[in-house]
Amino acid sequence: MYGYSDNKDDYLTRLRRIEGQIRGLQRMVEEDTYCIDILTQVSATTRALQSVALGLLDDHLGHCVRDAVESGGEEAHEKVAEASAAIARLVKS
Amino acid sequence: MYGYSDNKDDYLTRLRRIEGQIRGLQRMVEEDTYCIDILTQVSATTRALQSVALGLLDDHLGHCVRDAVESGGEEAHEKVAEASAAIARLVKS
Amino acid sequence: MYGYSDNKDDYLTRLRRIEGQIRGLQRMVEEDTYCIDILTQVSATTRALQSVALGLLDDHLGHCVRDAVESGGEEAHEKVAEASAAIARLVKS
Amino acid sequence: MYGYSDNKDDYLTRLRRIEGQIRGLQRMVEEDTYCIDILTQVSATTRALQSVALGLLDDHLGHCVRDAVESGGEEAHEKVAEASAAIARLVKS
Repeated sequence: MYGYSDNKDDYLTRLRRIEGQIRGLQRMVEEDTYCIDILTQVSATTRALQSVALGLLDDHLGHCVRDAVESGGEEAHEKVAEASAAIARLVKS
Repeated sequence: MYGYSDNKDDYLTRLRRIEGQIRGLQRMVEEDTYCIDILTQVSATTRALQSVALGLLDDHLGHCVRDAVESGGEEAHEKVAEASAAIARLVKS
Repeated sequence: MYGYSDNKDDYLTRLRRIEGQIRGLQRMVEEDTYCIDILTQVSATTRALQSVALGLLDDHLGHCVRDAVESGGEEAHEKVAEASAAIARLVKS
Repeated sequence: MYGYSDNKDDYLTRLRRIEGQIRGLQRMVEEDTYCIDILTQVSATTRALQSVALGLLDDHLGHCVRDAVESGGEEAHEKVAEASAAIARLVKS
């Protein structure tokens, strides 16, 4: 239905792997792992999460453009404004 | 001609202000300003630059969608892929 | 033992909350939530994760400095290089 | 005097190159360069600026630690808090 629907299983797999990384971080803290090693793992997890976001955004933009073409551009302006706001939040997060 | 053409003067004004901030940073280094104060100014300049990028991207996406509607979706796929790659570079920079 | 040891429970609480956010994201994908709403949630989760990283780093730097003072600066150079590399990874993630 | 004093010329050279990149961006806008190409150049400039910040921070941390060792840890706590705040601003910019 939405832009990412075709890749739903792929996103779920990636999010489950990220959940595993977060649990790994909890274990590292519990076991007093060296701080820098925890930070390395946090950076990897953040990158994995950002990569999910970039994939969702790519699917969404493709879907928006298809929708705009089919509807003759109706609502296209709001959709672009909404996507741009989401991109700004990603860049700043 | 492009998405940002209507706001060209605005972008030039902002880029000239950023150029001034970069020259301000050079002065701070020359005058041995305290490091943390330089870093604060670097962060402000980076944010100003990212904000120009987000504006250009918003204009570009609006233009892409308009183009896709007019052309019936031709090249829309490549345009979205290209925009997504640019977004990924921004998020990682 | 390490810099973050005093705040271990706090970090575990925050990481468990982030794990909950990741599971929330999986639910959103499963239930075909609107893409932009998922992206908003991804941004919030990324910020929470970055905030854990910044806390760990702050604790680590404090610990490093204390260690350097006690040991008369031994290994201080390597510790700073190691922390700087971790900061660079964070900034780029 | 400060952490970066030994590398002052290097930082000035890099900041002058970044100033050139910003002027290049102004030229690109004036000449109606394709938006995506401008964004690529903005990303490169942002990375160059972040790299200056990471260098300054590395020099600063090294200097802080040396200072703390010499002074027996006096003011070390405030210095770490100050550096951590600067790192947080960098990560979020």
